[in-house]
Amino acid sequence: MMNECTPILDTGLRGASVASTKISDVNGKLGKLLYRGYLVADLAKKTSYEEIVYLLLYERLPKADELNDLKAKLRGKRKLPESIFNFLRQIPLDTEPMDILQAAVPILARLDNNLENRNLESSKESALNIIAGISVLIAAWDRIRNGKEPVMPHATLDHGANFLYMLKGEIPNEEMAHFFDTALVLHAEHSLNASTFTARQVASTRAHIYAAISAAIGSLSGELHGGANVRVMEMLKKIGSVDKIDEYIENTLNEGGLIMGLGHAVYQVDDPRALILAPMSKRLGEIVGNALWYELSVEVEKRAKKVFKARKNLDIFVNVDFYSASLFYAMGIPVDLFTPIFAVSRVSGWAAHVIEEQFALAAPRPALYRPGAAYVGDYCGPNECSFVDIDKR
Amino acid sequence: MMNECTPILDTGLRGASVASTKISDVNGKLGKLLYRGYLVADLAKKTSYEEIVYLLLYERLPKADELNDLKAKLRGKRKLPESIFNFLRQIPLDTEPMDILQAAVPILARLDNNLENRNLESSKESALNIIAGISVLIAAWDRIRNGKEPVMPHATLDHGANFLYMLKGEIPNEEMAHFFDTALVLHAEHSLNASTFTARQVASTRAHIYAAISAAIGSLSGELHGGANVRVMEMLKKIGSVDKIDEYIENTLNEGGLIMGLGHAVYQVDDPRALILAPMSKRLGEIVGNALWYELSVEVEKRAKKVFKARKNLDIFVNVDFYSASLFYAMGIPVDLFTPIFAVSRVSGWAAHVIEEQFALAAPRPALYRPGAAYVGDYCGPNECSFVDIDKR
Repeated sequence: MMNECTPILDTGLRGASVASTKISDVNGKLGKLLYRGYLVADLAKKTSYEEIVYLLLYERLPKADELNDLKAKLRGKRKLPESIFNFLRQIPLDTEPMDILQAAVPILARLDNNLENRNLESSKESALNIIAGISVLIAAWDRIRNGKEPVMPHATLDHGANFLYMLKGEIPNEEMAHFFDTALVLHAEHSLNASTFTARQVASTRAHIYAAISAAIGSLSGELHGGANVRVMEMLKKIGSVDKIDEYIENTLNEGGLIMGLGHAVYQVDDPRALILAPMSKRLGEIVGNALWYELSVEVEKRAKKVFKARKNLDIFVNVDFYSASLFYAMGIPVDLFTPIFAVSRVSGWAAHVIEEQFALAAPRPALYRPGAAYVGDYCGPNECSFVDIDKR
Repeated sequence: MMNECTPILDTGLRGASVASTKISDVNGKLGKLLYRGYLVADLAKKTSYEEIVYLLLYERLPKADELNDLKAKLRGKRKLPESIFNFLRQIPLDTEPMDILQAAVPILARLDNNLENRNLESSKESALNIIAGISVLIAAWDRIRNGKEPVMPHATLDHGANFLYMLKGEIPNEEMAHFFDTALVLHAEHSLNASTFTARQVASTRAHIYAAISAAIGSLSGELHGGANVRVMEMLKKIGSVDKIDEYIENTLNEGGLIMGLGHAVYQVDDPRALILAPMSKRLGEIVGNALWYELSVEVEKRAKKVFKARKNLDIFVNVDFYSASLFYAMGIPVDLFTPIFAVSRVSGWAAHVIEEQFALAAPRPALYRPGAAYVGDYCGPNECSFVDIDKR
């Protein structure tokens, strides 16, 4: 185990390893992402989201009957009590979906009979409650805020297809459902990004998994974290047509702005997930008869890469958010659900990390994350301040 | 600025400084706690909670008219719309108060008109919304779960007294209200404990302050963090009478257990806050005509210190939770509200840290906290795993 000696004050912990994990590995140089040893590129081609849930929580790929059991279990856990929908109905309709999600997950805790005596197995059950629950909550919220009744979960559809069904009220096109499922596979886990670190950190106090995952949702809601594909979509809409791309890139860079969806904290090559999302976005554009957003994306990528090379001799790469924007948009998903859908997928990674933090691995670890801070207050020079009575201030 | 070189893998970031702060300083060796330069011992004697809110958010002690303005502002912000109470009424009555609080704070976000265009000033307004809001939410929830109507905030009472008023439905004894207010002063801020670190970490993604503080509540809910005075009270009840103390201490230590409320991650002397809480607990016992819990506390402290010295040649010290337990209990506060009351106070510290993280100080800091992890997965030896089709597993 590495114990590198890293200065970390005010660096946002960049370059510092704060935990051991068996859950995933990101090799930014080679563009490789592993979930429990498996390349995400393989998993995206050959598995479903439920297999990933199993892999992340149970540490190996399931056999066929184990996968069927898990799917059945998730289908059962989708049936939330009417009180949850009444809870949603009391919330003002223009509340942000991420606020709804952060609020609703702690409320699910009370439905969990295993919460009192937590152990490794019961925590996996709780994780499945939340994985099933979040997808129902988001779909129901989108219905409620549009004045419609929530669609109850489908009796046989798998996780991804059922989400689209609950969102739209109709069984989705099979290819679209498959692409959505693959997108969930690709977003499920990415080591200690900000939200996952939040989940682990909250879990380290022995807070329950609902508290930890609600907190992670709060972290994901920040525009520097979960909102990137929203801003990619806003960029594509602002550009509007291929002939406006060059001007947009020039103007944006001249003003010191960013081309959204390019660049990543970790990858120094194209994000392996983007390479899988791009052809799905292309094909979906064909299916729905609107190639514009994919074509815009391709051209923005191509031209922005050229401009960065010419201007700054810099190689810049697409990240996961670049092609998920046009993909989700072509599915007819409202743009302000892009980040909640990130949560619908990433919740399985968060849950695996919460469980690893609370039950696994890294003994001896101190009870909880408790860093220090450097006090730089100089209110009274080098001295403590002497108290001054209020009438003499 | 210190840039110490510290190994941090799996150590819960102990001993590592992750941020600069001007908000507070904890000197564990000398038992000194400073809020923006002022000794908490002075502040507890001479200020009210509202002065601390001002000090933490506006970086100096208020003049008399500034304090009056702040008090008036907080009184205004206590008036939550009926929709919030209806929201609470939809939640199952046996839901944990900390889950309620974590759920309710993101819902407050939508009431905030300044959330779109955040800046330093508007964030302080948002902070005051949450400071006022949390106290109303907790008092209202305790009423609702007991089948009573929430008590609307009092028109003139200060923050601490008003909380007790909303909780109990009657204007509190003046001395009791003063003690409660002082307890709020003492719990308001303590540098980067787990929940404050969570708040900063979520804020670093540019999530709004409601998301960050909801996450901090989740962190505080963990039994290793906010629940300590609950467990002190459980211990005192279990002991029950002075003549049972020696046996309890002996048995607990023989079984490898802890004496709750003794020992602290940071202090190597008696916690300066405990020294102020103890006489308040004593006096309040006299007022309410029940000295038992204070007397038990004093004797447990005295005898446990002796036993630790004799057995392990170890000096052990009381922490903030040791005397707050008997103090809050003598106030007639339900034990499962002890941790929410911690939040009622600490919210001002959380808010100050969120604002410092988002607007202040530590440039250049990377956009968000994004640590690394050490991948120790060895699923397929030193190699990536080869994918195996499901029927061959």
